Amino acid sequence: MIPRYARAQMTGIWEPESRFRIWFEIEAHALDAMAELGVVPESATKAVWDWWATNPAIDIARIDEIEAVVKHDVIAFLTWVAEQVGPEARFLHQGMTSSDMLDTCLAVQLTRAADLLIADLDELLAVLKRRAYEHKFTPTIGRSHGIHAEPVTFGLKLAQAYAEFSRNRARLIAARADIATCAISGAVGTFANIDPSVEAHVADKMGLSVEPVSTQVIPRDRHAMFFATLGVIASSIERLATEIRHLQRTEVLEAEEYFSPGQKGSSAMPHKRNPVLTENLTGLARMVRGYVTPALENVALWHERDISHSSVERYIGPDATITLDFALARLTGVMDKLVVYPERMRKNLDRMGGLVHSQRVLLALTQAGAIREDSYRLVQRNAMKVWESDGRLSLLDLLKADPEVTALLSIHDIEERFDLDYHYKHVDTIFARIFGD
Amino acid sequence: MIPRYARAQMTGIWEPESRFRIWFEIEAHALDAMAELGVVPESATKAVWDWWATNPAIDIARIDEIEAVVKHDVIAFLTWVAEQVGPEARFLHQGMTSSDMLDTCLAVQLTRAADLLIADLDELLAVLKRRAYEHKFTPTIGRSHGIHAEPVTFGLKLAQAYAEFSRNRARLIAARADIATCAISGAVGTFANIDPSVEAHVADKMGLSVEPVSTQVIPRDRHAMFFATLGVIASSIERLATEIRHLQRTEVLEAEEYFSPGQKGSSAMPHKRNPVLTENLTGLARMVRGYVTPALENVALWHERDISHSSVERYIGPDATITLDFALARLTGVMDKLVVYPERMRKNLDRMGGLVHSQRVLLALTQAGAIREDSYRLVQRNAMKVWESDGRLSLLDLLKADPEVTALLSIHDIEERFDLDYHYKHVDTIFARIFGD
Amino acid sequence: MIPRYARAQMTGIWEPESRFRIWFEIEAHALDAMAELGVVPESATKAVWDWWATNPAIDIARIDEIEAVVKHDVIAFLTWVAEQVGPEARFLHQGMTSSDMLDTCLAVQLTRAADLLIADLDELLAVLKRRAYEHKFTPTIGRSHGIHAEPVTFGLKLAQAYAEFSRNRARLIAARADIATCAISGAVGTFANIDPSVEAHVADKMGLSVEPVSTQVIPRDRHAMFFATLGVIASSIERLATEIRHLQRTEVLEAEEYFSPGQKGSSAMPHKRNPVLTENLTGLARMVRGYVTPALENVALWHERDISHSSVERYIGPDATITLDFALARLTGVMDKLVVYPERMRKNLDRMGGLVHSQRVLLALTQAGAIREDSYRLVQRNAMKVWESDGRLSLLDLLKADPEVTALLSIHDIEERFDLDYHYKHVDTIFARIFGD
Amino acid sequence: MIPRYARAQMTGIWEPESRFRIWFEIEAHALDAMAELGVVPESATKAVWDWWATNPAIDIARIDEIEAVVKHDVIAFLTWVAEQVGPEARFLHQGMTSSDMLDTCLAVQLTRAADLLIADLDELLAVLKRRAYEHKFTPTIGRSHGIHAEPVTFGLKLAQAYAEFSRNRARLIAARADIATCAISGAVGTFANIDPSVEAHVADKMGLSVEPVSTQVIPRDRHAMFFATLGVIASSIERLATEIRHLQRTEVLEAEEYFSPGQKGSSAMPHKRNPVLTENLTGLARMVRGYVTPALENVALWHERDISHSSVERYIGPDATITLDFALARLTGVMDKLVVYPERMRKNLDRMGGLVHSQRVLLALTQAGAIREDSYRLVQRNAMKVWESDGRLSLLDLLKADPEVTALLSIHDIEERFDLDYHYKHVDTIFARIFGD
Repeated sequence: MIPRYARAQMTGIWEPESRFRIWFEIEAHALDAMAELGVVPESATKAVWDWWATNPAIDIARIDEIEAVVKHDVIAFLTWVAEQVGPEARFLHQGMTSSDMLDTCLAVQLTRAADLLIADLDELLAVLKRRAYEHKFTPTIGRSHGIHAEPVTFGLKLAQAYAEFSRNRARLIAARADIATCAISGAVGTFANIDPSVEAHVADKMGLSVEPVSTQVIPRDRHAMFFATLGVIASSIERLATEIRHLQRTEVLEAEEYFSPGQKGSSAMPHKRNPVLTENLTGLARMVRGYVTPALENVALWHERDISHSSVERYIGPDATITLDFALARLTGVMDKLVVYPERMRKNLDRMGGLVHSQRVLLALTQAGAIREDSYRLVQRNAMKVWESDGRLSLLDLLKADPEVTALLSIHDIEERFDLDYHYKHVDTIFARIFGD
Repeated sequence: MIPRYARAQMTGIWEPESRFRIWFEIEAHALDAMAELGVVPESATKAVWDWWATNPAIDIARIDEIEAVVKHDVIAFLTWVAEQVGPEARFLHQGMTSSDMLDTCLAVQLTRAADLLIADLDELLAVLKRRAYEHKFTPTIGRSHGIHAEPVTFGLKLAQAYAEFSRNRARLIAARADIATCAISGAVGTFANIDPSVEAHVADKMGLSVEPVSTQVIPRDRHAMFFATLGVIASSIERLATEIRHLQRTEVLEAEEYFSPGQKGSSAMPHKRNPVLTENLTGLARMVRGYVTPALENVALWHERDISHSSVERYIGPDATITLDFALARLTGVMDKLVVYPERMRKNLDRMGGLVHSQRVLLALTQAGAIREDSYRLVQRNAMKVWESDGRLSLLDLLKADPEVTALLSIHDIEERFDLDYHYKHVDTIFARIFGD
Repeated sequence: MIPRYARAQMTGIWEPESRFRIWFEIEAHALDAMAELGVVPESATKAVWDWWATNPAIDIARIDEIEAVVKHDVIAFLTWVAEQVGPEARFLHQGMTSSDMLDTCLAVQLTRAADLLIADLDELLAVLKRRAYEHKFTPTIGRSHGIHAEPVTFGLKLAQAYAEFSRNRARLIAARADIATCAISGAVGTFANIDPSVEAHVADKMGLSVEPVSTQVIPRDRHAMFFATLGVIASSIERLATEIRHLQRTEVLEAEEYFSPGQKGSSAMPHKRNPVLTENLTGLARMVRGYVTPALENVALWHERDISHSSVERYIGPDATITLDFALARLTGVMDKLVVYPERMRKNLDRMGGLVHSQRVLLALTQAGAIREDSYRLVQRNAMKVWESDGRLSLLDLLKADPEVTALLSIHDIEERFDLDYHYKHVDTIFARIFGD
Repeated sequence: MIPRYARAQMTGIWEPESRFRIWFEIEAHALDAMAELGVVPESATKAVWDWWATNPAIDIARIDEIEAVVKHDVIAFLTWVAEQVGPEARFLHQGMTSSDMLDTCLAVQLTRAADLLIADLDELLAVLKRRAYEHKFTPTIGRSHGIHAEPVTFGLKLAQAYAEFSRNRARLIAARADIATCAISGAVGTFANIDPSVEAHVADKMGLSVEPVSTQVIPRDRHAMFFATLGVIASSIERLATEIRHLQRTEVLEAEEYFSPGQKGSSAMPHKRNPVLTENLTGLARMVRGYVTPALENVALWHERDISHSSVERYIGPDATITLDFALARLTGVMDKLVVYPERMRKNLDRMGGLVHSQRVLLALTQAGAIREDSYRLVQRNAMKVWESDGRLSLLDLLKADPEVTALLSIHDIEERFDLDYHYKHVDTIFARIFGD
């Protein structure tokens, strides 16, 4: 976890205090269920919850102190609880194995992390939608291979991003369901010393579903799918960040990250305004993607379990969720405040002297009876002149002056092919598909 | 694609002939829709389909010959079709861009590949279910950290595998939906020169849904999710393969890959029977996982599209699906014919002299009034003797001979804790959760 | 292996014929050494080499036929050799294990592949050097964050690429040494049934060094290092390819991939010339990088060996080397024929109205006695006007008209700060560091 | 960075205090060189070093405070230095760009980290060598595919590990050289405002070599190679860790991680001693490998630089080196204290009833005149009986009782083939290759 790429709420999920609180809840709910079964006395569950009702501070230093002696984090925690609650606490954890609590706790933490990430996506989607509508009909050039192709609108670019992050939201909800299971099934998952009803009760109370079959641990294909999904979301972040970085290039400059009045882009070069936020997002995306493979390698545990997954999850549990949370929020900020330059978009769109309309002229010539090869030749010989003039010549002017062209098309017909709105007649259709209105 | 790790049906999807057939269908359906719109004459669509109805062979050599001249695969194909159909073919592809066809074709191929993989999973699931029930109550030792823990049944191991591959099936169905979209939207996705109804018609005919917003290409987050899902499935394959490899170890030998009568394990060592199929599956899993990161890196295309994704997909489209198809089928074969040795499982289970029952004795002593520390000490001092005897001594015998133990528990009470069935009382519960019956 | 991304010489290394020839050589050299030891008769080695001297065709169909029966590739090959040579061939392979031959063969193949890749790098380096000198003093703008920074020369860009690929060459030579070892040490590497002198002789003849300790197989950390090195080289290819893609953008257009006279960039848009080769290289780089992780995962074989690495190597051995060979050759072609537009470079350099010189003015003002904050303010207030004019205003003009500036600096002093050559005074130094002359 | 997987010395390299100290040294040495050039007054360098000689505490809180205002870490640091030193400090950093200091600082940090890792490897190598000699002739079974193959010694296993980590040491030294360069070359690497001699001086003082051509930043192929090398080392750690995990399995139990007298393997199961350290190492290896791909993706920065690499390096700089340092030290501890059970090794070696000698009998029969097929049949029919008896029958006894065998070999000849020492005659040879003595 890198503090500068971390936000408090997500970080909080992974702090010792949160973990201990979740541990307590799991153990106490399990105790309730055991009391219900008559396996432990009602007095035990009462004692434990009465203490909790006093809203006790979690004494992490003391728990660490005990752990230094007993060398086992779960036993240390239970010992500390026993110090607070008294002898009734001895019924806690009965018939359970450490993983019952640890894996269920991880499920709770990842579920909460997923909820924050879903909320992050909702904020990003809201911003993208607002700005997509704002620029629904702002003309800009569409580029394939970095080369001018045909006109689009800036709103369409944002609508595509909205659609992509909507898919990511749906994927994340599925991935959340994948890791939201509770296992309290004992040393090898047979419920030998604990009744399945305990698991069902804890699952219900912690907002999880029951793990159908566990083997001391919850199977790691679930977690692999979760982290793989985060990797996909990170890749979408990289895509949008890369778009902004391109748009802010000196020669393009169609949009810019917001640059606050007093901000310095470079101590040495006063004219610099760099897309540092989106460059940063590109790097963060690499990290979140980098956590996918270790998560995949975690699946093939030996037999009923080995503990090789644990160290990996100590890293990637916090690192992947904290980094992605930060990245989504940063991207939302960038898109929210993005400075858009419609005039510059228009200027770039026009700078190729109308070459972007070449396809339409080509089609018109063919429809007017020219065979395709001739049409292509007629357009290309004029287009190449424009191209070589670096946009100083105008394709429209050249075509109107080309007798072979005007033999086939009237001036009006030619001009009609240079109409930008022609390209935008289905923008409403596309918006309706995405935003449903 | 490595022929020895490839099966015909999946390979067929990726062969030129299949691709050209899909191309034809996309173009011809698009033509239908355009005729419906009155953009092209009905005669064109009739000519094209009439030719197709003759079930013409695809002349790949001729198409390649044309491509060598025109340097464009789509134009080469259309030219060849025109050679066959005649001048009416000139209306094909009108207003479309190459990616309209190429990306939709990839969607069809991946969808068909997904269907084969789903069928593979169904076969694997059927085998796992059959064998899980066969060994529902075959006792075997559960192991954590590779060390004997407590008894499970071999059927439970297989039931867990069944549950894991059921999840993978659900994930694959979701991933299939993700890539099953059709885009026919023109050079930058604006439908400038083609009506959205063409896209809708082709989507319907090809069994796809409509891509809500494309940008010449279908967005690659869809493909990234698809390949990431294949990576998760591969990891589950590795898990089960690793289990078999462990079980076949000389010292464990609880199960073996089927070894046909005449087969030689080693030219040099006549006694060898090696788990080569599951070792092979471990390697294949690495490959399928290795394709995940390139797919994730493909997401961040520049602006409306660049073509960097294309070469990646030429590799991983076939390689990932063909390899996974082969691996699933091989795993199904391994599990179908797996030779299981229940006697050896029982022998291994017992070889620790009953140490696997130590926890139950511990709990019994505690319930009989001993404090936990004393119970632990009593069990451990006997357990350690058994351990050091390498299973020659019996924990049950030692406990019955330990006066401090018998002071707390009757001989009958002690013996009861060595009952294997105690561990299996919830096997039915778990099976019902998984198999629903 | 994708034919379109493959070149004949590298592909040849991985073809069955090449493999069988290497197999023969390993076995025959081993036989020589055994004859020298008196373990096998001299007549055997004579018979085998005499047959080989007839330059026999390798009958792959027949070998495959035998393999279909014996189910073992090495035995099939030896059986075929015996069919050709006669009974003297029975001494071949004596005391050896299949891996002795297979792993040594892989070492030979990877070594030859490395040699081709080193030759590829040499060709690329030669082109980069030639073009670096050609453009040693071609002014162009240096960009950080995609934003204009200060002047560089195009030759410097190429010199940096030269330096980077020189490092890659050195790394590849080290990686080649890592995999160039021969192991002929028997079933578990103890030389129980074969003398170490056989290994030494074969190593010498095949141009390899002796593997100090093998365990049936050559340890896979060697191969991991080799493929990791290919991944680094691929990343450098991506870097240079990305540079070209940027330079070819419509708005930048400082360089272009060579576009042959008749070539069509787009069937629909006649004005398009796309950087498709460098985009393709970007995708190929992703693939070569994708093979690194499977190679790393291959290291941890179980005990003396398991065979999980084998399937991985059947993919990545050919795929990584063939793809990288193709990519290096393609990159060399791109750089060789790259069309460079010095006028456009100069135009872009100047388009910011001289803002690139802002730092020098800042330093001059400070040296003239202004405190840094004042200097910054004076430069920035003029720079911002230029920036907002989109390069129509000139920083030099504005500074010369700013009385606060001219109070500190003479017109001559100001003008001197706009001297491009000032930035190039150490180009010779840098070239000397890289090219040594 | 996860505290439980971190050691103080390596962590120290990455702490703010260390970074600021390196920053100071770089800036002060640069100042010296500039004074030597007459660009800055001697008094400045004297003032700066005089202050440093007072061994001032680094006031991180104050630096953070300044950074909160100026939003630039380098400026914040320089401002704080100026607060301490006085006006003479204004000459610091003149003509330099932030990256000059930041990249050179990273080079120093990575170099120091590499030195610690090399020292870690030296300690591991020393332990491996000691234990290899200790068990040079401790017989144990060699296993391929997890199946018994032929005898080796435990010392040979350790010698192989020694050889592998020796290679890793050589690779790390090469990787260290790759990242040990200094760049002080200004905004785009042209030395426009700073003389190359400054760079040379700082490089010399900081123990680095000069970066031949930088572009504001040091090229990232260097760092990619460094982190890729760490990934290879991690994979070797996983290999040895996996070996120990296998050896500690209940059924094998030929070696065990040291288990201190009072330690509890499981709160529930008193008999458990789990290989948790080597399982943990397996997980840590996954993480270090996971950092390789982000490092490779960092290479393709845009033009002269973008800052996307920076966030990646904030994670993987510390995380990869701290984790690997911890893992190497943990592995050294495991190997140092590893409890080896030679009797159990011997028992396992013998448990297959002498099957491990089958190959030698096969060869003897062939040399006695039997054709290979007959030899194989004779050995196999006896071997299979032993196999099916699960080692209760003895291959030697059966062969001596098989008249077809004794017709070819005397009892003495047969017995001689069951001599373990036969397999160990070249152990000295192998040790000499590795340890050179």
